[in-house]
Amino acid sequence: MEKADILIRGCAVLPMDGRSLIEDGAIAIKNGRIIFVGKSTSAEGISAEEKIDAKGKVAMPGLVNCHTHVSMTLFRGLAEDKPLDVWLRETIWPLEARLNCEDIYVGALLGCLEMLKSGTTCFADMYFHEDMVARAVFESGLRGVLAEGIIEAGNKEQGGKTLNRSVNFAKNFSGYANGRITAMLAPHAAYSCSPELLRKVKDKASELGIGVHTHLAESANLFMEFEKKYGCSEVEFLNNLGFFEGHVLAAHCINLSDNDRHVLAESGVNVVYVPVANMKLGLGAARIKELVELGVNVALGTDGAASNNTLDMFETVNVGALLQKLTYLDSRVLSAYEVLRMATLNGAKALGLDTSIGSLEVGKKADITMVDFSKPHLKPLHDVCAALVYSARGSDVDTVIVDGKILMENRQVKTLDEQAVIEKAERHAAELLARKP
Amino acid sequence: MEKADILIRGCAVLPMDGRSLIEDGAIAIKNGRIIFVGKSTSAEGISAEEKIDAKGKVAMPGLVNCHTHVSMTLFRGLAEDKPLDVWLRETIWPLEARLNCEDIYVGALLGCLEMLKSGTTCFADMYFHEDMVARAVFESGLRGVLAEGIIEAGNKEQGGKTLNRSVNFAKNFSGYANGRITAMLAPHAAYSCSPELLRKVKDKASELGIGVHTHLAESANLFMEFEKKYGCSEVEFLNNLGFFEGHVLAAHCINLSDNDRHVLAESGVNVVYVPVANMKLGLGAARIKELVELGVNVALGTDGAASNNTLDMFETVNVGALLQKLTYLDSRVLSAYEVLRMATLNGAKALGLDTSIGSLEVGKKADITMVDFSKPHLKPLHDVCAALVYSARGSDVDTVIVDGKILMENRQVKTLDEQAVIEKAERHAAELLARKP
Repeated sequence: MEKADILIRGCAVLPMDGRSLIEDGAIAIKNGRIIFVGKSTSAEGISAEEKIDAKGKVAMPGLVNCHTHVSMTLFRGLAEDKPLDVWLRETIWPLEARLNCEDIYVGALLGCLEMLKSGTTCFADMYFHEDMVARAVFESGLRGVLAEGIIEAGNKEQGGKTLNRSVNFAKNFSGYANGRITAMLAPHAAYSCSPELLRKVKDKASELGIGVHTHLAESANLFMEFEKKYGCSEVEFLNNLGFFEGHVLAAHCINLSDNDRHVLAESGVNVVYVPVANMKLGLGAARIKELVELGVNVALGTDGAASNNTLDMFETVNVGALLQKLTYLDSRVLSAYEVLRMATLNGAKALGLDTSIGSLEVGKKADITMVDFSKPHLKPLHDVCAALVYSARGSDVDTVIVDGKILMENRQVKTLDEQAVIEKAERHAAELLARKP
Repeated sequence: MEKADILIRGCAVLPMDGRSLIEDGAIAIKNGRIIFVGKSTSAEGISAEEKIDAKGKVAMPGLVNCHTHVSMTLFRGLAEDKPLDVWLRETIWPLEARLNCEDIYVGALLGCLEMLKSGTTCFADMYFHEDMVARAVFESGLRGVLAEGIIEAGNKEQGGKTLNRSVNFAKNFSGYANGRITAMLAPHAAYSCSPELLRKVKDKASELGIGVHTHLAESANLFMEFEKKYGCSEVEFLNNLGFFEGHVLAAHCINLSDNDRHVLAESGVNVVYVPVANMKLGLGAARIKELVELGVNVALGTDGAASNNTLDMFETVNVGALLQKLTYLDSRVLSAYEVLRMATLNGAKALGLDTSIGSLEVGKKADITMVDFSKPHLKPLHDVCAALVYSARGSDVDTVIVDGKILMENRQVKTLDEQAVIEKAERHAAELLARKP
């Protein structure tokens, strides 16, 4: 076999491709891609530039966070214990009105740092000045599916302007950063965009051959308002518009009728389950079992740090599993393996990236998260998947590789100056609060 | 002022005694007790044997875990995705039948190590061979309210025998380890003990002047079985027996009627809310808002690692708050401060220890947890309580002090050999599984 760039040996490998755990496994990487996954004994003939002795660790596909607004790290803890509408109108929107480009860049850097330190290698983002998020993704070394938000809220001019921005972003940044950045269009929600605008979004997305990232069925109050206005659910409304014909990434999906679920399944909409933020804002629990039974691809997301209050996918995986068992009052619902698949392979599929990431398979890009299992709360180790879901924390992530490049090793981040990123974020958050509305 | 043993300076102090956060605060400790809590500037005249520069940290009362079976760390991950009755009958009880004293000691050591590393300073435990748990508590330096389990399950002889053991444990170990260990009696549950036995337990507890720790209203299935047998709820049944006359620590309390809640409030029963294990076993959510409104003292617990799968009170605080917001579909329910009080002062009260621990006040014992706030997921810091509840993890705990003694500093545990504890636990878990039933 050709000489590898990196050879990882001695760890357990959870490939998430259907194969079960490989004890004493090895992974070889060349030119950013995986060229070997198997037993360490079968890797003995592989030479490599860099060898990583990973005994006591578990290697898994990097976690995929399918819904966030990464720059909102700056608002962490600023809007506690508020209902969604108050949270938006009294705190979030006034703050967002004061945000400048540099704030968004700095907030995104902090969010990328946080994700990197907790094992997330790829994320889907929707915000304003998304080029600033792209800049942070470029610097951090992470992978991102980024989208400039489109919002009308009764203002047609604004709707058109934000659509143009979203399209321009997609044109300029698809394939950026050695292909680590791809783009979507991001209409905020069915209730905040007119049917005409949504149709244009859909046509543009299809013209560009890219997906659409939106919020869907997040709040029961909005659901009722929507039904009063349009006489149908958000899902029916979007379906009637033909909005689901292309690739759609729909976050939340809490308030769905049986018919809505069938529509999502038949249309192949990718649902992002966002357990932590949905609980924190008191919005309810998405019924994931029915969606999975209908064949819907369900992925996981954290949402922004203003409603979570972290970007920690290990927390989301844990709470996501617990919440489903509670929702159905049945401990058998959503196994640890299933929820890990949602956080990896299903996430990759939801972002249109499952041929290149989401599992550890030969030919895929090397996006790998390694968890240090030497700690007391992970001992004794009877079940690796259960340990990853219920006992492991983001802080147990030891090494992160994206695109075959080691971004963090022994918790030392190589791409970002951690202290500088934190200080900048603190300064920008303080300036933002002091700035006149 | 007299010379202190330890002076901590420069941290934010969250006293949890009604006072708000003290920025740039200080705490002085002498002979195991707190002799000063206030601003660093007011502590300038205090000399000390040992000074801790705690800039960038938050000091709070040590967390109080009010319901666990600490030795069950050995079973972590062994019984996944099972309903409570199957979980008990097919996995837990057969494993417990094979446990020996040394297993229980080793499992308890691992649990103490895990709790120490995640900021818990005091816990309430109920198990067999509780003297072995006491031995682990003694060595770890933690504080424990320990109880030998009493269970009859149709076998009167066993009921009497376990009652005697529980009483003997309480007599032998109350006040052990410089007073760090106190005792309770622990009848397993209303459904697993006869009325006669429960009356005896109550009389013995009153004779010894100690509390009673039990499981209450954990499962809807058991609730129905119980009602069929006795024609009333567990709460009514115990109330009719006079069981609630003394100090009672009741874990779970999920399936309660309005009348049950009133009975608990009028009897002054201390309720332990166990969000993670209740979700994981698909048992439901305790309705904490009603209990709090009726004036019930609500504390928090993790349960054992077989159903959680950690002993991490930071997770329990986080999930506990999220779950209440979900239960009432109202983000305003259970503020971060309230849930932190449940994990500290309310916990101390539930264990009958609120005059000595649970808040940082002059005269109280020095049980202190210090959290390192220098990490990206805790930045920027707009709200310390929200950060502790939603963003902090057990792994962010930096320093732990119990009884005025530093048990962990910069995450280095001083009382236990971490590696040796882990290796022993792994060996005993493997032997246990290999042992003939």
